[in-house]
This record gives sequence, C-alpha cells and structure tokens, in this order.
Amino acid sequence: MVTKNSAKIATTEASWRRIEPLELSPILQAALEGFYDNGFHGTSVRDIARRVGVTIPALYYHHQSKEGILLALLEISTGDVLARAHTASADGGDDPCDQLTNVVEAIVLRMTTRSRLAALEGEVRYLSPENRQRYRIVRKGIEELALGIVSDGVERGVFSVADTAETTRALLAMCQSIPRWYHAEGELSPEEVAKKYAEIALNTVGYKPRRKRTR
Amino acid sequence: MVTKNSAKIATTEASWRRIEPLELSPILQAALEGFYDNGFHGTSVRDIARRVGVTIPALYYHHQSKEGILLALLEISTGDVLARAHTASADGGDDPCDQLTNVVEAIVLRMTTRSRLAALEGEVRYLSPENRQRYRIVRKGIEELALGIVSDGVERGVFSVADTAETTRALLAMCQSIPRWYHAEGELSPEEVAKKYAEIALNTVGYKPRRKRTR
Repeated sequence: MVTKNSAKIATTEASWRRIEPLELSPILQAALEGFYDNGFHGTSVRDIARRVGVTIPALYYHHQSKEGILLALLEISTGDVLARAHTASADGGDDPCDQLTNVVEAIVLRMTTRSRLAALEGEVRYLSPENRQRYRIVRKGIEELALGIVSDGVERGVFSVADTAETTRALLAMCQSIPRWYHAEGELSPEEVAKKYAEIALNTVGYKPRRKRTR
Repeated sequence: MVTKNSAKIATTEASWRRIEPLELSPILQAALEGFYDNGFHGTSVRDIARRVGVTIPALYYHHQSKEGILLALLEISTGDVLARAHTASADGGDDPCDQLTNVVEAIVLRMTTRSRLAALEGEVRYLSPENRQRYRIVRKGIEELALGIVSDGVERGVFSVADTAETTRALLAMCQSIPRWYHAEGELSPEEVAKKYAEIALNTVGYKPRRKRTR
C-alpha cells in the first residue's frame, strides 16, 4: 500500500514516470511478438517454441496452453499499468485534478512505450469466458481508480460531467487507443503525448479551477 | 454534395439516424465472421470459402486475395460511416455544437450496431503498406470532417481546447472503442449511448454555450 508518506517520497522520485522496459520471460516475449505479427489464432504453440528456441514440451512445462500465455501477458501488462496508476494517483495528494492528471499521464506513458502489449487488448475476445473474467478483474482495478477520482472531483464541484461512469470509460478508451497511431520515431515524445492527454482529460471531465482566494 | 437546402430536408428525415444492416455480399459476410472469430491470420481463404459454400476459385473470381477481402470490408465500413457523418454534419447547419453532436451520434450509432465490422480496425496492422495507405485515405475523411468542426468551434469561441488535432483524435478514439464493451442485450440502447457520447464530446471540446441575448 502507498502511504501518505511514501506518496510524498514519490513526488521527488516519481517512479511512475520512469519508462523502463517491462521484463518478460523469453517465452512470453516470443509469444508477444508472434501475437502482434500474426494474431492469437495465427500463432501456434509451435511458432512460439521456434521463436524462443525451446521444445514444445519445455514450453508446456511453463504454460498450460497458448491461451494461458495470452492471459499471462495481459495480466502482467494490465497489472503493471494498475500499479503505476495507483502510485501516480497517490502522488496527486488530495486534489482530484492532480490525481487525474497523474493517472492519465501514467497510463499514456505506458501506452506510448509498449505498443505491442497494448495491442493485445484486441485479442481479449479470444479468451474463454473464465479467463476473460479473470482478466476483467485486473482491468476493473484501473476503471475503479479512475472512476473514484472523477466521482470525487464531481462531488467536490471541481469536475462537471453528465455521466460519471461513461465519461470515465471514454477517458480510458482514448488513452488505450494511443498505440494504434503512436510511433516512437514520430514527432512527439511519450512525455509530450502524456501532457496533451492530461489536458484533454481535464476538459473531458469539465474541470473548472477554483478561483484562488485573494487575501 | 449536400446543399443548404437538402440539409434542411435531412432535419426531418435524419437518414443518418436510421440504423439498418449494412448489406454485404455472402463472401464478405463470411469473411467478416471468420475474421471476428479467429482473426485475419487465423482465417484461411479455404475457411471463408467453406463458410459461404463456394469453391476457392469462385472466391478468387471476386477477390484477389484474403488481404483484398479485409481491405474491402474496411473500406465499406469506413466509407459508410464517412457518408453518414457528412450527412449528420450538414444536418447541424452552421452551428459547430450541433454539427459535432450530430457527427458523434452518427458514428456512435454505427459503433453500437456493427461491432464485428468495427472490431476489424484491430486487423489494419496486417495490411500491406500500400493497402494500409489506401484505407487511411478513407479514414482520414472522418478525421478531417471532425477536425474541421472542432477548429471552427474554437475559432468562433464556442469550443476551447489546448490542442485541436489531438482532441479530435481522442474524440474519435473514444467513439471507436465502444464495440469493445457495448452489447446489444445490455441496458443502453444505441440511441442512449449516442446521446451520452455527444455530451461527453461537448465537454471534451470545452463547449461553452453563448449567453443568450436578452431583449
């Protein structure tokens, strides 16, 4: 858990802003590349084993099935975004505006630097109902975090929206779609995209800064 | 072209609000189902021929390749959204707020009623560079229409955004992600989702209604 104190430390460190590659096992890395290049159904267990240079039994020693590999990738990716989003929110202290700005930046930084993992979201429909449910629980964590911030901002009169839940969903969707167009070699750095989306998010929630008190 | 006059007629007709199934040839329909169930790479030309009940040569008589079929589906789907969005915009007369509301509603109505076609967007990365370029030109039409409305609103002081192009892209992304969660058997009708997203869009562009003049 992030305590008030560790949140303060994070302000200096801002660990959620640091972009580092997500460490994946060789099998997961190979599967990720296969799924990205040819889709879940276009990639066989044999293809994955060949990419990583292990035998098929060796692969099954680590993972029950190809679907298990997809689920593992989705859980690692979403779990990492969730952890960073929580740290980012805590780093925003008690201000819904700072919290939302940080959470959107944290998510966008991930989206711009992990386009392959983010693109896996489209393969979720191939999971079995049970595995889809398992994945949804992790994903729900992100939705609930964002929803909490938006609701709090609305209650405190700094945000103004017609539908809190739908607005939150729309906000997350715009962040999630970034891997579809973002290219690392393009004009914008991940940090610039993150800043832009934080501004768009504040508009979307109808943010109205409180008038500063004059003494 | 839609003239001022036909725009007025459309207000009564509102053809862009009518939800009717998109007519696809049997081959395209079978390919769409195959791509949705198993992905582009997980669906062979043989699978498509089997689904529709034609021979493989018969299928190649109509389409050059499996990629040609994917491109055809993407162009039909996006072209239809583009046409409706233009009609919807014209139907909004000269008011950026009405134009944007209509365009968002038109797009969302399509997204809620054609989840399989909309999900194809994730397969665009499998197109060859030339075909991806061809598809992008059609898609760009929608982006330019929306961008024109948002820019116009900003110039006229009814919208307020930090970055017009990025805000427009974010707006379209939130509409496009609807097929990922929308279920026809759920609580919301397509019309209700469309209304909600039109409201969210107005917040996102920082819409401020002009004060009505008092006489």
